[in-house]
Amino acid sequence: EPTPAAAPAHLKIAVVPGDGIGPEVVAEAERVLDAVTAAAGVRVEKRRFGLGAQHWLATGETLTDQTLEELRAHDAILFGAVGAAPGDRRVPSGTLERDVLLRMRFALDHYVNLRPSRLYPGTTSPLARPGDIDFVVVREGTEGPYTGNGGVLRPGTDAEIATEVSLNTAHGVRRLVRYAFELAARRERRKLTLVHKHNVLVHAGRLYSRLVEEIGAEFPEVAVDYLHVDAATIFLTTDPARFDVIVTDNLFGDILTDLAGAVTGGIGLAPAGNINADRTAPSMFEPVHGSAPDIAGRQLANPVAAILATAMMLEHLGLPEQAARIEAAVQQDLAEHGTEARSTAQVGDGVLAALA
Amino acid sequence: EPTPAAAPAHLKIAVVPGDGIGPEVVAEAERVLDAVTAAAGVRVEKRRFGLGAQHWLATGETLTDQTLEELRAHDAILFGAVGAAPGDRRVPSGTLERDVLLRMRFALDHYVNLRPSRLYPGTTSPLARPGDIDFVVVREGTEGPYTGNGGVLRPGTDAEIATEVSLNTAHGVRRLVRYAFELAARRERRKLTLVHKHNVLVHAGRLYSRLVEEIGAEFPEVAVDYLHVDAATIFLTTDPARFDVIVTDNLFGDILTDLAGAVTGGIGLAPAGNINADRTAPSMFEPVHGSAPDIAGRQLANPVAAILATAMMLEHLGLPEQAARIEAAVQQDLAEHGTEARSTAQVGDGVLAALA
Ligand SMILES: CC(C)[C@H](C(=O)O)[C@@H](O)C(=O)O
Ligand SMILES: CC(C)[C@H](C(=O)O)[C@@H](O)C(=O)O
Repeated sequence: EPTPAAAPAHLKIAVVPGDGIGPEVVAEAERVLDAVTAAAGVRVEKRRFGLGAQHWLATGETLTDQTLEELRAHDAILFGAVGAAPGDRRVPSGTLERDVLLRMRFALDHYVNLRPSRLYPGTTSPLARPGDIDFVVVREGTEGPYTGNGGVLRPGTDAEIATEVSLNTAHGVRRLVRYAFELAARRERRKLTLVHKHNVLVHAGRLYSRLVEEIGAEFPEVAVDYLHVDAATIFLTTDPARFDVIVTDNLFGDILTDLAGAVTGGIGLAPAGNINADRTAPSMFEPVHGSAPDIAGRQLANPVAAILATAMMLEHLGLPEQAARIEAAVQQDLAEHGTEARSTAQVGDGVLAALA
Repeated sequence: EPTPAAAPAHLKIAVVPGDGIGPEVVAEAERVLDAVTAAAGVRVEKRRFGLGAQHWLATGETLTDQTLEELRAHDAILFGAVGAAPGDRRVPSGTLERDVLLRMRFALDHYVNLRPSRLYPGTTSPLARPGDIDFVVVREGTEGPYTGNGGVLRPGTDAEIATEVSLNTAHGVRRLVRYAFELAARRERRKLTLVHKHNVLVHAGRLYSRLVEEIGAEFPEVAVDYLHVDAATIFLTTDPARFDVIVTDNLFGDILTDLAGAVTGGIGLAPAGNINADRTAPSMFEPVHGSAPDIAGRQLANPVAAILATAMMLEHLGLPEQAARIEAAVQQDLAEHGTEARSTAQVGDGVLAALA
């Protein structure tokens, strides 16, 4: 990934609080963002965008061309979560996922879906012996079974046939795999695991294997191995510490990162970056968790994932020291307070205190 | 599933020991099979079939039409595992999986891939608080992304496109879902969870949802819920005891059952049935684990999965009491010996002692 030459003096950030707990966790993320950028003398210009269920109910709009154009004028997007209240049938199922989240990923060419997993001191894994977990999933973001290809013949009948088509291109896999190798080469353990199911999905599997082999030749310092996706879930519960960088397709990455979030203490802690590594459009940073309408508005949500997403955003924008400061502050706060019951704002206070 | 009217007096079983640890674990399964059927006065006629890597190296054959015809003449197939030694490049990657395992599933119409998961006393889960795990995954076996559809355009070039097509039919999903509801209705908790990803894979997802709703109307006593596959992996590590019957597609089922095997103490304990519930061809029963060539021939493999697969086979063949006897004997043996180091045959001895 070509990083900005110099640290920026000025950032334009699009903020999308969204629905449910989104606004609460984004509020804490913004406080942290403001604190570290102010300390670094970086001016941050923010603009808020309404997207999600509430926005849809109010306007009938998902993500319009115009909003996309306006988003493009920013350096990055800080995103909360979108989703209707459970049982609210006014928003058709799948609409927000496809017409907001996936539309944004595809339109802004977020081809790397970057999802780090760490088990921080003070957090509790459901695993009895989790070990020292610190890996990153590099998930494809613009291809695979997510392209909306496929269809249905004779819908609603006894002779119905429904297809889903996974599209995989050398263009798409190559840039993903290159990103993953570059990341692995910068990390301490320099290990890359390709996860696929090439014994069954032979065509896509062969493409991934070929490009990992080809690009891997440029990175002799990175050790490469391969796991079928089913076996990968076993290792994620029996020995997650074995992983360093995992590179995988869009759907497998979706599944593995939720599992990874679970074994590292909950997706309340897991951030994600939807990255356009060519920087032809702004990248988007978000917590992996959803809008959790059941606990919304009650200061019960954990803002750590949103705060860590902010750190990823700053790293991407050429402010790695500020990103590291946030990471360190989160770690310190978690080590001090562990899983003790605190309000969303109290966790934000804790991280700000650790920053100071 | 229409069960045989009366307990059979005579069974014809095709035995496929296969490669690696297959022959060792199947040997113990056969001892258990012989003991319970002898006690019940059921005569068992067995015929051994060579399939797998060794067979391929010796004959150049995978699974021929003739072998398939011969298998059809049996009541069921007891299967070990197939797979080449690691690094043995003489068997092309994927050949055994596709041309033996998947060919058998498709040719014999094994549309239900039945995978029970229980945490037995005496076994150790990697989870800190696994709870009381006892669920069954009803995985589709003959459709989805496993049909070998898809292809590649411009292979090996920078313009390569590889596709994988998931095929889903009302015919295939309906019979699967019906099987799952019938099973759920017979179980104590009467819960069925559909796992899919209908917010992204809309066409296939809608078909599954429609048929679960439709067939569910015939089973008002069964409580139905839905989880996206990514969320399902979270619950499998944080609260696996919540599940009763899971019904899902071929690929999701592949992933979830390996994870389920892991959280219940390892796939060394997990059996599977590849079931033709219409009984137009013999069903096949196997341990979920593979051929584990690294430990083969050293009496290190755990035969419990193969023994439990034998119990599933007897249940399917109309001998539920004999199946229950095996299950109880395995449980007693595990409770007594836990995870203590024993040879493959010693575990077989233990189960036989518990049977006596
Ligand atoms: C909401 C859904 C479309 C999305 C995905 O499947 O990618 C989510 O699960 C995620 O992981 O970001
Ligand atoms: C070996 C492979 C083809 C098979 C599958 O994917 O179904 C295996 O993983 C299984 O679960 O039985």
